[in-house]
Amino acid sequence: MSENLEYLRHSSAHLLAAAVIELYPGTKRTIGPAIETGFYFDFEFPQGVTVSEADFEQIEAKMQELAKTWKSFDRSELSVAEAKAEYADNPYKLELIEEFSSDDQILSSYRSGNYSDLCRGGHVEHPDQELQHIKLLSVAGAYWRGKEGNPMLSRIYGTAFATAQELEAFLVQQEEAKKRDHRKLGKELDLFVFSETVGKGLPLWTPKGATIRRELERFIVDEELKRGYLHVYTPDIANLGLYRKSGHYPYYKESMYPPIEIDEEEYMLRPMTCPHHFELYASRPHSYKELPMRFAELAKLYRYEQSGELSGLLRVRSFCLADAHIICLPDQAESEINQVLDLIEYIAGVFGLKSGENYHYRLSLGDRADEIKYFKDDASWDLAESVLRKVLVDRVSHFVEAPAEAAFYGPKIDIQMKNVNGKEDTAFTVQYDFVMPQRFELKYIAEDGTTQQPIVVHRSSIGAIERVMAFLIEHYAGTFPLWLSPVQVRLLPIADRHLEYAQKVMAQLQAAGVRVELDSRSERLSAKIRDAQLEKIPYMLVMGDKEAAAESVAVRSRAGDEGVMPVTKLVLRLQAEITNKS
Amino acid sequence: MSENLEYLRHSSAHLLAAAVIELYPGTKRTIGPAIETGFYFDFEFPQGVTVSEADFEQIEAKMQELAKTWKSFDRSELSVAEAKAEYADNPYKLELIEEFSSDDQILSSYRSGNYSDLCRGGHVEHPDQELQHIKLLSVAGAYWRGKEGNPMLSRIYGTAFATAQELEAFLVQQEEAKKRDHRKLGKELDLFVFSETVGKGLPLWTPKGATIRRELERFIVDEELKRGYLHVYTPDIANLGLYRKSGHYPYYKESMYPPIEIDEEEYMLRPMTCPHHFELYASRPHSYKELPMRFAELAKLYRYEQSGELSGLLRVRSFCLADAHIICLPDQAESEINQVLDLIEYIAGVFGLKSGENYHYRLSLGDRADEIKYFKDDASWDLAESVLRKVLVDRVSHFVEAPAEAAFYGPKIDIQMKNVNGKEDTAFTVQYDFVMPQRFELKYIAEDGTTQQPIVVHRSSIGAIERVMAFLIEHYAGTFPLWLSPVQVRLLPIADRHLEYAQKVMAQLQAAGVRVELDSRSERLSAKIRDAQLEKIPYMLVMGDKEAAAESVAVRSRAGDEGVMPVTKLVLRLQAEITNKS
Repeated sequence: MSENLEYLRHSSAHLLAAAVIELYPGTKRTIGPAIETGFYFDFEFPQGVTVSEADFEQIEAKMQELAKTWKSFDRSELSVAEAKAEYADNPYKLELIEEFSSDDQILSSYRSGNYSDLCRGGHVEHPDQELQHIKLLSVAGAYWRGKEGNPMLSRIYGTAFATAQELEAFLVQQEEAKKRDHRKLGKELDLFVFSETVGKGLPLWTPKGATIRRELERFIVDEELKRGYLHVYTPDIANLGLYRKSGHYPYYKESMYPPIEIDEEEYMLRPMTCPHHFELYASRPHSYKELPMRFAELAKLYRYEQSGELSGLLRVRSFCLADAHIICLPDQAESEINQVLDLIEYIAGVFGLKSGENYHYRLSLGDRADEIKYFKDDASWDLAESVLRKVLVDRVSHFVEAPAEAAFYGPKIDIQMKNVNGKEDTAFTVQYDFVMPQRFELKYIAEDGTTQQPIVVHRSSIGAIERVMAFLIEHYAGTFPLWLSPVQVRLLPIADRHLEYAQKVMAQLQAAGVRVELDSRSERLSAKIRDAQLEKIPYMLVMGDKEAAAESVAVRSRAGDEGVMPVTKLVLRLQAEITNKS
Repeated sequence: MSENLEYLRHSSAHLLAAAVIELYPGTKRTIGPAIETGFYFDFEFPQGVTVSEADFEQIEAKMQELAKTWKSFDRSELSVAEAKAEYADNPYKLELIEEFSSDDQILSSYRSGNYSDLCRGGHVEHPDQELQHIKLLSVAGAYWRGKEGNPMLSRIYGTAFATAQELEAFLVQQEEAKKRDHRKLGKELDLFVFSETVGKGLPLWTPKGATIRRELERFIVDEELKRGYLHVYTPDIANLGLYRKSGHYPYYKESMYPPIEIDEEEYMLRPMTCPHHFELYASRPHSYKELPMRFAELAKLYRYEQSGELSGLLRVRSFCLADAHIICLPDQAESEINQVLDLIEYIAGVFGLKSGENYHYRLSLGDRADEIKYFKDDASWDLAESVLRKVLVDRVSHFVEAPAEAAFYGPKIDIQMKNVNGKEDTAFTVQYDFVMPQRFELKYIAEDGTTQQPIVVHRSSIGAIERVMAFLIEHYAGTFPLWLSPVQVRLLPIADRHLEYAQKVMAQLQAAGVRVELDSRSERLSAKIRDAQLEKIPYMLVMGDKEAAAESVAVRSRAGDEGVMPVTKLVLRLQAEITNKS
C-alpha cells in the first residue's frame, strides 16, 4: 500500500469515527488504522445501541456531510496529563495513553472540523477534496486489542480510494470474491461439511469433494513417482522423544496438541513429517549410489489453531501435506532444487497458474547475528543461501529476498501465491537443511569408503490438500475442469421411454472410466438442464428418439450446444480431455 | 483339537516336567496344558540354571527314557491339607491349591513312573506306547499366570502327535510358516520397519512396502467405486462427545487412547468410522430415492494394544480399515448384504482365496436374555438375524452360527480367515445395525412423504490394510503377483556397453507404467540373476549385443527362461498380466 493510500484510509477512519459519534452520542472510540483492504474503527456503542449494515447508508451520508467541513488536519500538542483529562471517560484511550507514554512526553492530536483525536499523524492534506470515494463494508465483533476476555467492541470496516474508478473496481472484485468464496461454493456444490459434534476445524469431505481430492492426490503421487520420488507411509502419531530428537519440540510446542499418554509414554499428533522420514532413512545403511533418495508422503499433520482463526478449508486443525524430503549429497542439492521447482511449476501449470503472474518465489534468509532463532553455522548458511539464490537466478525466476524469514535449520524458497482477493500468502516452501542430518545422524558411505553426512531438501509440490482445494474452488469458481469434476457427465433423457437407452449409454461411459449420472426424473428437459448448470456439470447429453436410433447423443458442453455425436466418438473426446487435464 | 489329541498332549506335558525335574533338580513346576499347536509347561529353574533349545536333545532323550517306564496314569486322591504339605516348597502350586479349592475338597493327583502331579485328569491309557512322537519346539519367558509384575518363568513349548507322519507334517508346516513369517520377510524384502524412537506398534512403510499398499488401496477404492460406493474422507480425531453420542464410549473406552485436550474440549483418536459417516449423512436431508447410500473410506483407526501383544503388522496401534457404512431402507438390506459378500468374494478371489476353503462365514448372533451386552429390541434382533441367515443360506455359503458373538447394536457375519499356520481368526465383519440410526437420528423422506429411519450395514471389503499386508506376505511367501510386486522388472545388461540400450528399454517400460529397475553394476550376469531372484523380482530382462540389435530382450520369468522377445511384445504381455492381476 502506498503512503498516499495509507494516509487517505487513515483519514477516512477519522471521518468514520466523527460521523459515528455524531449519530450515536456516548459512543466510546478506540483505534482506527488503515489496513490492506481499507480501514476499520473499533467502537464501544452505548448500551442498547446496535449498528448493522442497514445503518451504513446513514453513516456514509453523515461522513459526506462532515467531509465538506474538513479543510485540513490540524496538529496540536498536549501533555500526558492533559490527554488523560480530555479522555477521562474513555478507558480504552486511557489504557493506551498509560501504556505508550512516559509522564513527561508530549502527545499529538489532530483536529478537522469539530472532531479531534489522539494520533501520531499521517493524513491527507485536503480532506474535503480527497475523502470522496469511501464505502463502508461490514461490521463485526472484535475483542479490545484482539485478546479473548477483553470487552467485545464493534468493528466497522470500510475502504477508501483516490478515485471513483478504483473504488468501483475494488467493490466488483470483492463481490466476485464473495461469489467464489470456497466456504459458500463448498456448501452449494456439496463438497465438504463441518459437524459441531465431530469438532471444530475438522472438515468432512462429501463424496463429491472426496472425488476431487482423490483425483488431486493421485495426480500428485503419480507425477512424483514418475520423477523418481519414493512414496512411503509413516505413522500420524509418534513418541514425543522423536520431536525432542529433531529439536522441533521447543520451537513448535505451541503449535502442537497436548500429548496422549500410552503405557507411560507420551505420544503426539505429528506436526510435521521430517523426523519420520529420517527414521525411515536411518533404518538401514546407504551407499552414495542410492542418493538422492526422495521420500514423499501424503502426510496428515496436526497443528494447533485457535478456534477463532479457523476458516473453511483454509485454516484447519488437521491437514494433509504433499510432503517430501530429499536426502542427497551436498553437490546434488542444486540439481535437486531445480527439479523441485520444475515439478512445482509443472503442477501449477496444470491449473493454469504461471510463475511471476499467479505466484512468485521468495528467498527467505537466515540472520547470522541471531543465534537463538537460527542454528549457528555461518559457513553452512552461506553455502545453502548461495545454492538457493543460484537456482533462482539461473532460472530467471521472479523472486524477492526476505531477510530473517528462514527456518531454524536453514534457508528456504517460499512459494507466494495470490488468492482471488489478490492477497498474497506463503502456500508452501522448499527448504535447505544442514541441521537435521546431524541430529538424526544421517549417513552414507561415500565413493572413497568414508562415512559422510548428506543434506536434506524439505519440500512440498502443491502444499496442503485442504488449502489447494480451497484455492482451486475459488480459482475455478466451482467450474472445475473435466478431470476434477465430481460428476463429469449428466444424461438427460427427454422422456421416460428414453430411459433404457440412457442406461445403455451410462454403462458405456462408466466402462470408459467416466463419472456419469442419469437424471431419470420426469421433469421437463429445460428444468433438467438448469439443474445441471447450477451444479456446474461439464457435459449434458440429451437423448430422444433420434439419438437412440442412431446410437448418438446431443452434446451440451460449457461452451454451449455442440450438436449430435456418436457415443463412441464422445467417449474418445472425453477420455482425451480427462487425460490432458484441459 | 480332538479329545484324544488333547489327552496325548497333556500327557506329554507331564512327561516333559518329569524329565526336566530329573535333569535340573530343584526346578519348581507350575502348569502344563495342551494347546492348539501342542503343549507347554512353565518352570522356575534353580538360580543359575538356564535352559535353551540347545538342551532339547538331552531333554527329549530323557523323556524317551522315562516314557518306557510309564505304563499308565494312576489316579489318587488327597485332601487340600495333604496337597499343601506335599507342595510346601512350591509357592506356585500352593497359590493354585489355595485359589481353586475349598478346604473340604478332595483333589486328584496322577502318577506315572516316579512322577506325580496335581491334575484334573485327561491322559492317554498306555503312555509307554503312545508318547512316542513328541518334539520340543522352543523356550520363552512367560510371566506366572500371564500377569506383568509376577515372577518370570521359563515356558518350554513342544508338540505331540499320534503318528510319526503327523508329527513330520506338522514340523514341515511350522518350518514353512517360519520362512513365510511376515515379520521375517518384511525385513528381508525391505517392506516395512519399526523405530523405537517413533514408537511401538507404529510401522513405517518403506518405498517397496508402500508400493504394494498403494496398489492394494487403489484396487479396493476403484472396485468399490465401480460398485456404487461413495468414497469420503473424514477426520481421524473427533470430539469425545461423538463417541458418547454413538454409545461406543462406555463399551470401547478400554480400547481407546486417552483424550487430547484442545481449548477445554476433549478429542479422541478415532477407534471407528461409523459415527463420522453418520454425521456426514445427517448433514443434509435425504430422499428414499438416494438410498442405499454407501459411504466408504480408507479410515485410519486407533485402538489400544498392550505393548506385549504387538506383533509385526498383525497387531498394531494404528491401522487403516477399508471401511463402509451402507445406509439403506430395511427392505434393501438383504440385497445390499448379498452385494457386500459378492465384493468380498471377488476381492478374496483375486488373491486366489476361496470361500469354504481359505475362509468361511460365521453368523454371530445376539442373546435376547442379555440386556446389558445387547441393545434390547427383540423384534429387530429377530428380523436382522433372519436377514443375515437368509443371505447365507440362499448363497449356499459355508457358515457356522455363533451365539452371543454379535455387536451390541446388531448381529453380524464374521469372515473367518485361516493364516499360514492354519490358525483361524476373524479377519473382518459385515454387521446389521438398527441401533445407531436411532442414536444419530438418521432419517429419510419416504415415498409417501413421511420421515422414516433407515438401517445401516457396517462392513469391510478386505479388512485392515496392515493385516491384509501381513496375510498376503505370508500367503505369497513374498513372491507377489506382478501387479503387487514393488519392482516388476529388472534389467540386466550383460556388459557396460549394453547400458545405453538398457536405458532405452527402461524408458519404454516406464512409459507403459511398469515399475522397472536397472542393475547397472559391473557384476557377472549370474550374480545379477541371483540377486534378482533373492528379491523375488518377477521378470529379469537380459540384454547383450544380439538383443540390442533386434530391439528385443531375453526374458527370465519366475517360470524360467522364456526366450528372446521384442520389447513391444513384452510390454503388451506385462500390461495384460498387471491388468488381470494374475
